This record gives sequence, C-alpha cells and structure tokens, in this order.
Amino acid sequence: MISKEYILLSQIDSPSDLKKLKKEDLIPLCEELRRYIVEVTSTNPGHLGASLGAIELAVAIHYVFDTPEDKLVWDVGHQAYAHKILTGRRDAFVLNRKYNGISGFPKMSESEYDAFGVGHASTSISSILGMAMSAQLDGNKKRNHVAVIGDGALTGGIAFEGLNHAGITNTNMLVILNDNGMAIEENVGALSRYLIRLSASHTYNQMKNRIWDSLSRRQRIRRKFQQLQNAIKGSIFKGSNLFESLGFRYFGPVDGHNVISLIDLLEDIKKIKGAKLLHCRTVKGKGLKPAENDQTLYHAPGIFNKDTGEIIHLPSCPDEVEKYQIVFGETILELARQNEKIVGITPAMASGCSIDIMMKEFPNRTFDVGIAEQHAVTFSAGMAANGYIPFCNIYSTFLQRAYDQIIHDVALQDLHVIFCIDRAGIVGEDGPTHHGLYDLAYLRCIPNIIIAAPLNEIELRNMMYTAVHTTKPFAIRYPRGEGVKNNWKNKAFEQIPIGKAEQLAEGEKIAVLSIGHIGNNVMSAIQIIEKQENKKIAAYNMRFLKPLDEELLHSICKQYQHIITIENGTIVGGLGSAIAEFIAQHSYSCTLKTLGVPDRFIQQGTMEELHNECGISTNHIIEAIKQYL
Amino acid sequence: MISKEYILLSQIDSPSDLKKLKKEDLIPLCEELRRYIVEVTSTNPGHLGASLGAIELAVAIHYVFDTPEDKLVWDVGHQAYAHKILTGRRDAFVLNRKYNGISGFPKMSESEYDAFGVGHASTSISSILGMAMSAQLDGNKKRNHVAVIGDGALTGGIAFEGLNHAGITNTNMLVILNDNGMAIEENVGALSRYLIRLSASHTYNQMKNRIWDSLSRRQRIRRKFQQLQNAIKGSIFKGSNLFESLGFRYFGPVDGHNVISLIDLLEDIKKIKGAKLLHCRTVKGKGLKPAENDQTLYHAPGIFNKDTGEIIHLPSCPDEVEKYQIVFGETILELARQNEKIVGITPAMASGCSIDIMMKEFPNRTFDVGIAEQHAVTFSAGMAANGYIPFCNIYSTFLQRAYDQIIHDVALQDLHVIFCIDRAGIVGEDGPTHHGLYDLAYLRCIPNIIIAAPLNEIELRNMMYTAVHTTKPFAIRYPRGEGVKNNWKNKAFEQIPIGKAEQLAEGEKIAVLSIGHIGNNVMSAIQIIEKQENKKIAAYNMRFLKPLDEELLHSICKQYQHIITIENGTIVGGLGSAIAEFIAQHSYSCTLKTLGVPDRFIQQGTMEELHNECGISTNHIIEAIKQYL
Repeated sequence: MISKEYILLSQIDSPSDLKKLKKEDLIPLCEELRRYIVEVTSTNPGHLGASLGAIELAVAIHYVFDTPEDKLVWDVGHQAYAHKILTGRRDAFVLNRKYNGISGFPKMSESEYDAFGVGHASTSISSILGMAMSAQLDGNKKRNHVAVIGDGALTGGIAFEGLNHAGITNTNMLVILNDNGMAIEENVGALSRYLIRLSASHTYNQMKNRIWDSLSRRQRIRRKFQQLQNAIKGSIFKGSNLFESLGFRYFGPVDGHNVISLIDLLEDIKKIKGAKLLHCRTVKGKGLKPAENDQTLYHAPGIFNKDTGEIIHLPSCPDEVEKYQIVFGETILELARQNEKIVGITPAMASGCSIDIMMKEFPNRTFDVGIAEQHAVTFSAGMAANGYIPFCNIYSTFLQRAYDQIIHDVALQDLHVIFCIDRAGIVGEDGPTHHGLYDLAYLRCIPNIIIAAPLNEIELRNMMYTAVHTTKPFAIRYPRGEGVKNNWKNKAFEQIPIGKAEQLAEGEKIAVLSIGHIGNNVMSAIQIIEKQENKKIAAYNMRFLKPLDEELLHSICKQYQHIITIENGTIVGGLGSAIAEFIAQHSYSCTLKTLGVPDRFIQQGTMEELHNECGISTNHIIEAIKQYL
Repeated sequence: MISKEYILLSQIDSPSDLKKLKKEDLIPLCEELRRYIVEVTSTNPGHLGASLGAIELAVAIHYVFDTPEDKLVWDVGHQAYAHKILTGRRDAFVLNRKYNGISGFPKMSESEYDAFGVGHASTSISSILGMAMSAQLDGNKKRNHVAVIGDGALTGGIAFEGLNHAGITNTNMLVILNDNGMAIEENVGALSRYLIRLSASHTYNQMKNRIWDSLSRRQRIRRKFQQLQNAIKGSIFKGSNLFESLGFRYFGPVDGHNVISLIDLLEDIKKIKGAKLLHCRTVKGKGLKPAENDQTLYHAPGIFNKDTGEIIHLPSCPDEVEKYQIVFGETILELARQNEKIVGITPAMASGCSIDIMMKEFPNRTFDVGIAEQHAVTFSAGMAANGYIPFCNIYSTFLQRAYDQIIHDVALQDLHVIFCIDRAGIVGEDGPTHHGLYDLAYLRCIPNIIIAAPLNEIELRNMMYTAVHTTKPFAIRYPRGEGVKNNWKNKAFEQIPIGKAEQLAEGEKIAVLSIGHIGNNVMSAIQIIEKQENKKIAAYNMRFLKPLDEELLHSICKQYQHIITIENGTIVGGLGSAIAEFIAQHSYSCTLKTLGVPDRFIQQGTMEELHNECGISTNHIIEAIKQYL
C-alpha cells in the first residue's frame, strides 16, 4: 500500500479519480508521481529515465481522454510507469518486473487500459491505426486513438510504414511525438537532426508563443485556435514539414513538461478530426538531476539512492567474472586493431552490447544506425559486398526484425557478415517480449549460415576470431550477463574448427549434449551426479548448431543408450530438433530427451527463477539424468 | 545470338561499347533495347512493365558512370532487364528466368555489374550506403554509388531506415527515384500522394524548365548549374522537401525517358559530393501501348503478341481447375458477406493474391497498405485487438519481413489474426529470392499459433472458415498456382477439428505423412506403387503442423515400420523435424525418411523442374517408398 504521504496519488485508483482533481492539483500530482517512481525503482530497478520524462504526458492524456474507451498505445513502453500507476497498478508497481509481478511494459492481459502490448520499438502507429480503422468501420466517430512514440522509436521502419498508411486515411488518431533526443544513447540519424532544427527554428518559437498566448485566454480559445490552425496550414508550415508531407496535421513543438498547457492543447486537438501529430519536447530523466545529466546511464540504472540519485554498486565477488558483453566489446576492439577491414554495427545498443569500447578507438569504423535492425543488417551486407568484415551486433529478440534481411541480403548472397547475437536465451526481468528464445530455430533453416554459441568467455573470443577467418555468414549467440572464467583477457586467439564439437566429460550410458553457456550447468549437474551416485556421465559442448558435428554424433549415438540435449532457447526447432532429426534419419536406437524452453509463454523474473520455470536449470538436468541411471 | 537487325545493340557487349556511341545514337539504342525486351519476353515471360520504364535510366547510368568500378544497385530488380542486356548478358537474356538460365533479378554471382543481389523490395538504399561507406573508409573519393528505387519500394520501412542513416553521412551516393506511381498495383500511401503533389507543383515545372534551359547551353553549364543548385538549396525547396528534411540534396522531378537530358544531368550531379536524390518521372510499360494502358496486367503479362502487345491466353484444359489464389479470393468474399467483422489486408499484392475480389464488393474493409509487410501485420493486430477478424494475406517469402511482428504483435498477444500465406513452397521462375521455403520452420517455434496447409481447394475453404471460428493466431499456407478439384465453389463450409489429421489411404508397413498440396503427389505415388507392385501404402494428410495430431502419431508409429514425410519447404525445421522429434522423444522404433527442399541454394525454373531438382516430386516419393518395399 502506498504511503499516505503521497496525498494526491494515494487517492487515485483509476483515471476517473484523476479527473476529479482540479487542474492546478495536477502539478503537485506529477511531483508525487515522480517521487513515487524514483522511490520504487531505487530499490526495484526498472526503466527510470524514459518514465520520468513522460509523467506530464501520462497525466494530461488520462485527464483529457476517456480511457479505456479511448485507446492509448505507448510505443516500447519504457515510458509508461506513470500510466501504469494511474490505471489501477499503483500498489502493484512495487512488484514491477518481478516474478509474478506486473510487467515492465503495457500488456493487454494485465489491464484494459493497456490497449496494445508492447516491448519492441516502433509498433504504436500501426497498431493504433488498426484500432482507429476498426472504430471507423464500426461507425464510432467519438472514440479517440492516441499513440505516444519517442523520437528514437520513430526511426524504426515500421513507424514510417504506419505514418505512410495513416496519412491517407481519415481516421481519428493522434500521434504524440515524445521527443527527448534520445533512444538509450543519443538518438542518431537525419530525422533526429531534423527534429532539432524544427525545435530551434524561428517558426517554432513563433508558433509556441502563439499557442501559449491563445491558451492563456480561454474564453477566446475556439476562434483563436481556428486562426492558429489556419496559420499552421497556411503560411508557416505549408508543405514545409515532414509530417505534413505525409498527410498529418502537425502541432508543436511544445513543452512536454507543462501539464496544464498540455491539457489545454490536447482538449483543443481532440476536437480536430483526422490524423494529427503533436510534437512534445521532453527531458529524459526529468526531475532527477543525475538522470538528466547522464541519460544513457539512467535509462535503466539499477538500484540507486532515491534522494541523491547516486547509483549503488553492489559489492562484487573477489573472484569477479565479467559479462559476455565486455568480452565482446574488448575482443572486437582487439580484432579491429589487427584487421582494418573489421567494422562494427549496432542498432542503437552501443553501450548495451559494449561496442562502445570499439567506438572510442575507432569512431569511423563503428556505426550506431539508430533503431533500425533491418537497415543494420543490409548496411552490413553492403559493406561485406565491398570486402569489409562487419560484426553486426543485435539482441536476439530484435534480430527477429531483420529476419528477411538475414535470409535475403546475407545468406542467399553468401556474404561474410558476422552476427553477434546478444541477449540470446532468457533475459530476466524484461520478460516475454524480450527473451531471445527463437534464434536457434529461426536461423537453423537458413542456408549457408554457420551458427555457433560459446561455452564461456574464451570460446566467445575464439569464435569471433574464427568467424573473421571464414568467408561465410556466421552467427554467434551468447546470453545476457556474467560468464564463468577469469583470465580470459589477452589470451592468444585460437581458431575453432567449423562444425566440430568438444567432449567435456567422459562417461557411460548417458551423454548430455549442450550448446552455449548452459553447458556450464551441465558440468555442475554431472559433478553432482558423480558425487551423489558415483556415476560418470558424458558431456559434449556442441559449439555449432550448424553445421552439426555429424561424425561425432554417429559415434555418440553408437556409444550411449541415452542422449539428453539442453539449450537456452525454444524446445522446438533448435539443438534438440537437430539431434532428433539425426537420430531418426539414421535409425539409431538411443533414446532422446530434449530440454529447452517450452512452447508456451514464460514470464519475467530473475534469471534463476526463469531457468527453474522453464526446466533448464542444473536441477532439471540432474533430474533428466537420474531417469536413466 | 542477337539478330543483326539490332544494329546498335548487337555491337554492345559491355558498357565500354556503350560509351563508344555518340550521345545521339542512344535514342535509337533505347528503341532497340525496348524492341528486344518486348521480343524476348513476348515468348519467354518476365517482368515487362518495369523494365520498359527503366530503359533510358539504364542507358544513361551506364553511359555516365564507370560500372562496375562505380557501384549500381537496382531495387527489387524487376526493372533491370536493360541493365542485364547492356552488361554482357544480351544473348543470355533469351534464357531469362529459365532453368540454368540467367536470373530474373540482379545477382552477384552472375555478373560483376550486379553490385548487390536483389528480389525483395526496398533494400537498395541500405546496401548502397554500405558500399559507399566502405569506399569512404578506403579513402576512395572517386567511386560513385547509385541506387535506383521505385516509388513503390520507397514505402518499405527499411528504405526509410536507410535514408535516415544516409542523410547524416557524407558518403558519395545517389538515389535515383524511379517514380512511375506504381508498385504492381497503383502505389498507395501518403508518400505517393506527396510525390504526385511534388510533380504537379509550380516549383516542379519552374525547376524543370530551368534545368532544361541550363542543359541546352552546355558551355555555361557549370555556372548555371551552380546557380541552380543554390536556387534549390535556397528559396524554392528550402526545407520544404521531405528528402531535404532527411539530409539529401534533392533534384527533380525530371523526365526519366529523355535519355540525353538524363545523361547531362547525371554528369552534373556526379560532380556534387554527398547524399543526393534524383526524382525521375517514368511510365511503367513505356513504349508498348497496351502495357502503358494496363500497367498492373503488364507487370508480368505472360506471353503476348510482340507487335500488338495482345496477351495470348493458352488454351485451357476442358477439365479446368482454378488457382488457389482464386479460391482464397472468392472464399474471403463469401466469409466477409457472412461476417461483417472480417477484413482483408494485403501489402501491395491485391491482384496477385486475389484479395481484389473482396475489394470490389467491400472497398472499405479491404486494405492495400503498400509495400509494408511489417505494418500490414501490426495493423492487422490492432484491428484484431478491437474485435475485427483480419485475414492478412502475404506471400511466404515476404512474410519474412514481418517475422518480429508475427511473434511480438500477434502471437505473444494471442490475437486472432489469420495469416493466409500465399506462394508457399517453390514458386518457379522467380527463383531463390522468392521461394517460400522457410515458413513452416520459422513459424513452428512460435507459441500460440496454429499452422495449417490445405490438401486442395475445398480444404483451403474449410481452413479459412475454421480459422474464423477460433480465437487464435492462425496461419494457412498454400502454393502458387493451380489446385486439383473442380466443383469447389459454393460447397457448404465445414469446420476442421484443430490439430486433427486425416487418413488418405490405408496400407501396410509404410506410411507417408504430408502437409499441404504435395499430398496429391503422395496419392499419385501410392497409386503407381499399387499398380506396379501390388502393395498398399498408407498416406496421411497431416493438415496441421501445429498442433500436431499426437494421438494419431502414436498409433502411426506403432502400426508402421517405416515413415516417410514430405513437405514443400526446407527439410530443416518443418514437418519432418516435428515427426523426428516425436519419434525420438517417444523412442519409437520406426524408421524415418524426410523429403523436403535440401539446405542449399536451389534455382529458378518451372515448378516441375524444381520439384525434380529438390527431390520432392512424385518420382522421389515412389523412390523413397521402394526402399522399404
């Protein structure tokens, strides 16, 4: 239960309570919301910066519009904490992103106020247009449709596809551009520059003043606003605006933190039919100074001091291991120093994937292309076609966006693009929209591509090195988070023979085959079995899903009675399926038990909770082995 | 060998021969090219309309630029026939799209003049930018980079992502917008309207005249052109142009059929560094009257009279069967009449998939969203979220573009979107970039989705009907071309139990399991076997890849010694893999032979040639069965 110190917020159980407040009270309400979000996320980490920047927007939208009858979609959803708190999830917010708690993103099954489930960027315009079109077909002229999209998400191709379609419809929809100049890093691209120019231009200030002038005299607002509109449609912006080119009526830029003005403006815009875009300038991290000053760090800062904003670093183990991300970042830098043809590409995840380590030394050879996974892959293919060796680093879940580009622009053309697939497997608190579960299955059917996953840091280094020395499309997937080895740095590189597995442990009767980091759990499991049961179980690190080590598999299938496979990915279509195909096609008599993420929704939580839930923990491996002992 | 009647064209074996011609000769050369393309495609069908519209562009580009040292990418590649003919493939062009002939699309392995392989729309800006960036890193300031993209392809999201990145680079690249107002159908969307406005505007004509004036007085061209540029950057287009907003220098619109003027203009533009866009107006089907008049029909008209352009309809069998596409089109209309919540969505394939049948009767409930597969899916999801039942029809190969949207916006949200996946399996002459081979594999790992494929027309009808009566994401895949049944029309609809297979033939020892239309080949095969060998072979139409009919599979695995699976899709990850998983996990002792498209490139050709090449013809089924007799 929320403390009564939150005098206004503690009274708000739904937007109808919000509407009972006087407009003047909304300013202190926003401050309470800000304080509450800071307080909760200071101990239960989440996406702080974006949500602090969208508090006034959330309050104004729910104050003006009749949600959930009016439809509201938050693009990505990082910025929707105030929305969640205002729509019946204030107390549940303390379990934000926790196992069995509320999702960190809007989710249809969680609340009728979440008109569409989100997580990946740039989907809001298409989905809200679908809803607006439905209302039009229903003959419902009253319902409003609002999408809130950041300037970062606006660079994703589907957002443009949505604008292009929306601009010729006459549906009743409003796109609110939440322009803070940021994705997770500073936003990049020509559109971003354009928005800055638009905000800095004379017409902007002129227009802003006119709006504020108008709004301060409410009795004359209708006529004034009409004039203003005409002015917008007429001399000031006529044809001179990108959004107007695409058939939208453009309003702004306005201050996205002036809640009273936003409300007045939204009430007026609401009366105008058709496709509209309101351009709001906001500040990511608004109200928490350190978050305003380092917006990338405070995108999702982990735990921090709620009063000072100071980030609290948890004491590290003496035997510290580093994240796979760091291994990637330092290794690509090392390789880039050796080979000037190596380039790095990221779609807006430079710090998340640690390619920023290379970027510092080789700014010209490291490309942050913005939220644009499709372009990231085909741009890489273009560079490969001219003899460069691109490392294209994309999170597994976002690589789904570029699936056609992998097939059509890389694999069918047999181009030497190296995909480093980060956040592969379960990712933890971000939950179902972000788990990287499908890559092994969706890549395995593609011709020409090599698919690998490292057991540990040293193997990641060597796989990256090996990939440079092939000429094929090459995918390396590795999980979010910590590795297992110390002393991986500056080890001499070794090439790994393509399609060759390695035996990790010898044993009898039972062999456990794994791919990637989860092989460490296999090793733990067989050590426990050996202690408990005095039985030796064989283990193999397959390393490559494609090509499979068929020679070894023949000997494994002959040698052991029982085979167990385990992978941190969907149980359908990946390693388990490949081994099943092999056994069935060669009519081996060994049994097969496959462990992998089951084909149903899984949820958010700590990595440990989710490995348990999915049946891919050390204990599950032990259990599977014991069936055959 | 080309006839000597082609006086100029017969002398041109490469662009260096082209450059020997005087500029005046290029006009008759374009006429020869036009005549040659018409002559060849009149008997060997291909993509006629787009290529007729881009003849002058191809000649001008190769005349001005130093290909293959300068890089040239044709978006999609439908329009690249003149390019192919000019770059050493004039005589080979008679085998365009034929088995063992040249590809219908630019292909890197075919020619050094094909800087990038294409087929799917909208990839040219990203790929040419990759090449331009490579040249920049190489310190190569001389090399030019040209992408030719249609106004249709420009609506695809990746094109926008490419523009957004290119606009902040200082790479040396030119995007030529080949604006004919068409995709296959008339182009749709706000961008298309904008281009029309741009062409019709006063500034357009003013500018066009200025360019032509300048160009007619070559001696003063440099200074004039400089003035013109300043004019463009200054008063006329300052900030008022969508492309300029995105950091491109915009030139045009100009007449894309005036080859002399194009050459003069390209020579001048070549001298300007940075990202440039030249907007050319062209006419699809240019020079062949019937093709100009019905641009959709003549996109790929089949065989026709080369003199009159009249399309030649092959005599149809007395026992005529219709295409699956017609079955889809008439069935969705029938269902839409019964249920007003049913809507149809296509990304620019209204006539190809036959949704135009519904569009005629229900224009408000049928949406052509342009070349924008991602948006098509998420827009459908938005409509489903509001209680509509969208049939989203996308070709299998293009659905790859929307893979993330299927997972993230439909399946994870458990929305009732019905995917009708056209052109699934081998598609014939379009070749590798267009074969719909991966869908079974890439869909099978997705949670919540039902995956089905009909054996024949009646089953397609009933699957569509069944899909309406579920509440789940539902995918129905069917091939390009003719079905097998007559009398499918107006049959009473029947629901098919979800996840239930049907037995097609009884037999002993051997069972053949198939999914989709290829089950008809299975029936042919077992009838031949019965005649030849007097043996009865069992056959099952699985109908659903997901959920599998596990109950039936248990009894099949117990009853038969040998199981053969066959599918018109990649051998990895689809039906064969699902059955392999089942057999391995349940430790059945039956053997398994899987037939499917092997994991290597296949080529273009007739359906029959490709079924033979891939090992999924009736003969291959017979061969597989005979191994076990």
